[in-house]
Amino acid sequence: MTGTSRETIGVGMVGYAFMGRAHSQAWRNAGAFFDLPYTPVMAALAGRSRDQATAAADRLGWGAAETDWRALIERDDVDIVDICTPGDTHAEIAIAALEAGKHVLCEKPLANTVGQAVAMAEAADRARAGGVRAMVAFNYRRVPALALARDLVAEGRLGTIRHVRAQYLQDWIVDPDFPLVWRLDADKAGSGALGDIGAHIVDAAQFVAGDRLTGVSATLETFVKERPLAGESAGLGAAAATGRGPVTVDDAALFFGRMSGGALASFEATRFATGRKNAMRLEINGSDGSLAFDFEAMNELSFYDGTEDPRTAGFRRILVTEPDHPYAGAWWPPGHLLGYEHTFTHEVRDFLAAIADGTDPAPSFADGLGVQRVLDAVGRSAAGRGVWTDI
Amino acid sequence: MTGTSRETIGVGMVGYAFMGRAHSQAWRNAGAFFDLPYTPVMAALAGRSRDQATAAADRLGWGAAETDWRALIERDDVDIVDICTPGDTHAEIAIAALEAGKHVLCEKPLANTVGQAVAMAEAADRARAGGVRAMVAFNYRRVPALALARDLVAEGRLGTIRHVRAQYLQDWIVDPDFPLVWRLDADKAGSGALGDIGAHIVDAAQFVAGDRLTGVSATLETFVKERPLAGESAGLGAAAATGRGPVTVDDAALFFGRMSGGALASFEATRFATGRKNAMRLEINGSDGSLAFDFEAMNELSFYDGTEDPRTAGFRRILVTEPDHPYAGAWWPPGHLLGYEHTFTHEVRDFLAAIADGTDPAPSFADGLGVQRVLDAVGRSAAGRGVWTDI
Amino acid sequence: MTGTSRETIGVGMVGYAFMGRAHSQAWRNAGAFFDLPYTPVMAALAGRSRDQATAAADRLGWGAAETDWRALIERDDVDIVDICTPGDTHAEIAIAALEAGKHVLCEKPLANTVGQAVAMAEAADRARAGGVRAMVAFNYRRVPALALARDLVAEGRLGTIRHVRAQYLQDWIVDPDFPLVWRLDADKAGSGALGDIGAHIVDAAQFVAGDRLTGVSATLETFVKERPLAGESAGLGAAAATGRGPVTVDDAALFFGRMSGGALASFEATRFATGRKNAMRLEINGSDGSLAFDFEAMNELSFYDGTEDPRTAGFRRILVTEPDHPYAGAWWPPGHLLGYEHTFTHEVRDFLAAIADGTDPAPSFADGLGVQRVLDAVGRSAAGRGVWTDI
Amino acid sequence: MTGTSRETIGVGMVGYAFMGRAHSQAWRNAGAFFDLPYTPVMAALAGRSRDQATAAADRLGWGAAETDWRALIERDDVDIVDICTPGDTHAEIAIAALEAGKHVLCEKPLANTVGQAVAMAEAADRARAGGVRAMVAFNYRRVPALALARDLVAEGRLGTIRHVRAQYLQDWIVDPDFPLVWRLDADKAGSGALGDIGAHIVDAAQFVAGDRLTGVSATLETFVKERPLAGESAGLGAAAATGRGPVTVDDAALFFGRMSGGALASFEATRFATGRKNAMRLEINGSDGSLAFDFEAMNELSFYDGTEDPRTAGFRRILVTEPDHPYAGAWWPPGHLLGYEHTFTHEVRDFLAAIADGTDPAPSFADGLGVQRVLDAVGRSAAGRGVWTDI
Repeated sequence: MTGTSRETIGVGMVGYAFMGRAHSQAWRNAGAFFDLPYTPVMAALAGRSRDQATAAADRLGWGAAETDWRALIERDDVDIVDICTPGDTHAEIAIAALEAGKHVLCEKPLANTVGQAVAMAEAADRARAGGVRAMVAFNYRRVPALALARDLVAEGRLGTIRHVRAQYLQDWIVDPDFPLVWRLDADKAGSGALGDIGAHIVDAAQFVAGDRLTGVSATLETFVKERPLAGESAGLGAAAATGRGPVTVDDAALFFGRMSGGALASFEATRFATGRKNAMRLEINGSDGSLAFDFEAMNELSFYDGTEDPRTAGFRRILVTEPDHPYAGAWWPPGHLLGYEHTFTHEVRDFLAAIADGTDPAPSFADGLGVQRVLDAVGRSAAGRGVWTDI
Repeated sequence: MTGTSRETIGVGMVGYAFMGRAHSQAWRNAGAFFDLPYTPVMAALAGRSRDQATAAADRLGWGAAETDWRALIERDDVDIVDICTPGDTHAEIAIAALEAGKHVLCEKPLANTVGQAVAMAEAADRARAGGVRAMVAFNYRRVPALALARDLVAEGRLGTIRHVRAQYLQDWIVDPDFPLVWRLDADKAGSGALGDIGAHIVDAAQFVAGDRLTGVSATLETFVKERPLAGESAGLGAAAATGRGPVTVDDAALFFGRMSGGALASFEATRFATGRKNAMRLEINGSDGSLAFDFEAMNELSFYDGTEDPRTAGFRRILVTEPDHPYAGAWWPPGHLLGYEHTFTHEVRDFLAAIADGTDPAPSFADGLGVQRVLDAVGRSAAGRGVWTDI
Repeated sequence: MTGTSRETIGVGMVGYAFMGRAHSQAWRNAGAFFDLPYTPVMAALAGRSRDQATAAADRLGWGAAETDWRALIERDDVDIVDICTPGDTHAEIAIAALEAGKHVLCEKPLANTVGQAVAMAEAADRARAGGVRAMVAFNYRRVPALALARDLVAEGRLGTIRHVRAQYLQDWIVDPDFPLVWRLDADKAGSGALGDIGAHIVDAAQFVAGDRLTGVSATLETFVKERPLAGESAGLGAAAATGRGPVTVDDAALFFGRMSGGALASFEATRFATGRKNAMRLEINGSDGSLAFDFEAMNELSFYDGTEDPRTAGFRRILVTEPDHPYAGAWWPPGHLLGYEHTFTHEVRDFLAAIADGTDPAPSFADGLGVQRVLDAVGRSAAGRGVWTDI
Repeated sequence: MTGTSRETIGVGMVGYAFMGRAHSQAWRNAGAFFDLPYTPVMAALAGRSRDQATAAADRLGWGAAETDWRALIERDDVDIVDICTPGDTHAEIAIAALEAGKHVLCEKPLANTVGQAVAMAEAADRARAGGVRAMVAFNYRRVPALALARDLVAEGRLGTIRHVRAQYLQDWIVDPDFPLVWRLDADKAGSGALGDIGAHIVDAAQFVAGDRLTGVSATLETFVKERPLAGESAGLGAAAATGRGPVTVDDAALFFGRMSGGALASFEATRFATGRKNAMRLEINGSDGSLAFDFEAMNELSFYDGTEDPRTAGFRRILVTEPDHPYAGAWWPPGHLLGYEHTFTHEVRDFLAAIADGTDPAPSFADGLGVQRVLDAVGRSAAGRGVWTDI
């Protein structure tokens, strides 16, 4: 480097699989596009296997590798701990990091249980007093189209919200011989489609609508009840199978709810929507307008302005790449699309800004706890044959 | 006419508003495109006002006008009674017509209550013995794209069905000053969005999936609880308002259910989806493939074949206007689109074919009763705070 | 009929194949949806074969059949002559009909040569003095979305027009064994894709832009130079083949031009665009806005308003089914789509209105001649290796 | 870095505006996703202003800044020279670098004239003998969807190609007060829309079709002939204006041509397509199938397989994010989209592979010269009123 006057901030990351690769990309590039308050330094990553952690650090641009997340937290050159591990480990790592005075960015869902999430939110509250920040990584809030959607709702362009319609449709386990990876194991993942992708649409729906769910009626289903054993596998990929084991999470979750402002909301999260690869879809209908979004065309937001002349009214396909659109101006000229990983770059930028400004980042651990309470209510309603369950 | 050797069949229609116009169009044109077993003769229509009925008959091509539907049924030149009136009158007219030995085509929903629908289905059973046929007019089954969808499911192209996702979204009463027309009056319409458009998606979902709902969990909502009085109004249009009155039906219905084959199904019917004009949407995901349809692009069916090479797999936009597509070959060359009214022409053609063949038309009154039982279960579940309700 | 006070007007149609079926549908139904100044009476159709003409009359709703178009013109009960035959016969029939004082609706292209078109336009001029009207049937002007497009341009919503991009893509003769039907025979059809579908986009481009082409640079191509003989075949269907014969028309036409207002325009008409069934596409870019249309989604118009805030600007998908949209209010509620045949119904309605009002219908024979001059310039430019050719 | 056994390769970049930012992003990230034969080291960038070059190097991750491109070429730690400057400087820099034994990656268009391009291609030929490689940066070849398109054509899935339809539509200078930036100055940019974006679609069309244009007929237009002076401006942004100056390049280019295999091809490049931000669109119709692409939805390829049953044939929307798709497997799971900048990352990866393998990268300088000859023929045809001009 040829020199800069900005202060540096050290980052340590726990985990280096799918999310670890995405977060690394964010830390590596944010400074080239955004005016950051600190220059992030990718100090070290932690993983259980020395060889794999070292190879990952080398490949992803981290300065060192640790085999124990506790050692990572203790490093002097680590100011931020970025947690990219399965949900069963989030509480322990995050609470330890916060207590050590490190800022924490934690992957979603915040935890596997409401109890863990409560403890994490309390730890974040305690740490805040010392200027330590905690953020949960619901990265879809940083899709420019969804950030614009939020802005339009906040500006009143939709009027009173009547309907929220959220779906997250994938198909990667339709094949009954897809192996029993950790995401299909309740002990590690907490739940299945519900916590993995359902959590995203619950957060996105509440974020864009600017409102909270007050109750739900739900059902859960596991279509394929046994799968080939996967062995040790950290990611989505399969390892050598030796026999079959039980799937202990849901394949699909279906629920509807009501929001405090009177809107009806419906949710569907499934890994069995053949042909839908990452169709995170959100539609909102208000008294004055409507919005529609599909992550498979993530640079577009559809907006209907119900207040204009019906002769020329129609859903507009807004290409959210204009200089005045959230985040977009930092990148390329209009029409030059952004991708999935940019959402993490935006997340890192906002997290650093919150640290510098001394404000709470959003979504906070309290927000993550709120989502966890919805997931919990869904589970209880489903167990009770769909009975209405307050949140 | 220059002469034809086909036998004629006389038709009498009750009602001449929106549905009456659509059915008239069907009777007037079916013979020009399809080889019908009978030449339909548009004998007479019935309406309460002599002036309006006469004007409608003149305009729509009916040979005479009656002011009493009983007189219409008694006419010797009427072999088929086509019922296009609000749901509260269906049972009385249909049962009388069947008992008079007239074939009956009845608009949907079959009735306003399960009790009425049971009586109608029983009347249809009794009449069948005498070669008299009864059909309920779920016209969306005759959209070529949905008929093709049914064929693909029946051929096994989707494998085991996992998800059915059905929505019927409109926005014509978003304005709180839209008047209190008969469709918003429970006495006449039975229910609101549920029976008017929810009935369509329940029928379409069961028809295309080839399966039955076994239970539901539901909620209903009336967003605008009072509206300007409309006076006497037969259609969607408003008349002079004098004060406001209570809306006694639902504005929106949201429910999920399970089908006997194991599929999860979700439904949403609303008149508050600003910007959606007639978005009757159906998606089905199976283990081997998926389908998607939206009536606002009614000539298209999206089909994903999950058995082909992922390199070239994708949702295909099938333009359902090919000679080998259901109904389409009778009309124009490929790519020359059909419209809403064609569904009624196809309905009339199939009804005449069933009469000639001595087979039961589909959907039968028993099918209509089946839909009514679903609507009824939805109402009971909603009254019970979403509790699971068997059908 | 139960009686009407409107004056009747007698119609005679020459030809009963594809276009004859479409025009019959228009005459049969216009009165049920529009307030027509006259009640059209479908007096007689003419065709060379008595049996076929009689069967067609019976099926399509015509009162009589003639085997000589001259006899049709002479009938007292024929006030309007509707010409649905191949282009080589248009001039003779139309001129004779006009000279007999009959109004003429003539299928496009107006003629097979500029000379014929000139004679027809002159005949129309002479007839006008006697209150006799002539119209050429460029039915795409009556697609509601294109009529709305024209209105938006006329209102200045696009500002100065910079680009017109017109394509008409079909694929019905991609198979080299598709037979040598009359549309592939220069003697009958005049030209191939150029006159059949290229004529439509030339007319539509000039109509919507409200401007005229001043010159073109062009190329023509015949990809498949010999095809199986088709025998006698009046329509698109194939008859028994006995050997192969030369294709004497173009399979594809490609040209660009300039309009008098300074816009650049590009055109492509082809029958070799595999997978495109009837993709008549038109895009217009102006200094203040843009439009896009594709007939395969004919109920939609895309409109971009360049004067609004870039944050919410985007191509709007206008569903052209609102009460205030051209023609649409006469049909069904919003979102209930129209089809191909409706364009002819609208044409008939406007033609009758022009007759009643004593105004010239549009497009007039002079407009048809204008299109013919463009097609002629295209042919000359193509023969001259693309050299710029003034119109 | 924690250590790697791969050999490093030093990179020096000339220019740091729009293209410089994009290329930096590629060099910075390629190694995290692809197994590269060398580890690229971002040694230095060159720019005329010391302050700006230093700031850019710091921000974009370059180790040093030079103010003279000759000094950059001479650096021992620079093995690859990456040229991201306006077209008028390409020849001088590229030839000097090649003669100094440095590999060269040069932005497109290769040069501003055929003469310069010839000299560059000859220099590349001479350098090749010494194992030195030269590549022109037509990055759109590395959009996964276009790479897949090329593969499908090469595999014969389209049969004989009949039509190529290429458009590159932007709107960033529709406003007549947009300033006279260097891209509107013929001395620097060579041409306007033609060389800037027309070059891309000429290359993409020839690449995907696997064929060459043999001649063209063309027209060029400058709609806005004078613009506010921009002062010194390196990018798309405006600087302080002092008066107006002449636009010396084309605003739009329209041409059609023929390919050696018999296909007709049409091209349109414009900066006046209001509402189109970066609509680089390509359609290809063959005897057995068709393809369609639009960069504004760059993760999608539409493919029509004309050999399958017409009942289920339709344009498939392939989401080009599957593991077996070109480049895509290196990134994220299916349905997680890529963006504009990824095309440069792929380019860098392929360039390094060619260097390591000792093979010629594609597109080569000879390919770039081929495109230049097309652009030159377009200019001559336009000057000759569209006359057919051989290439």
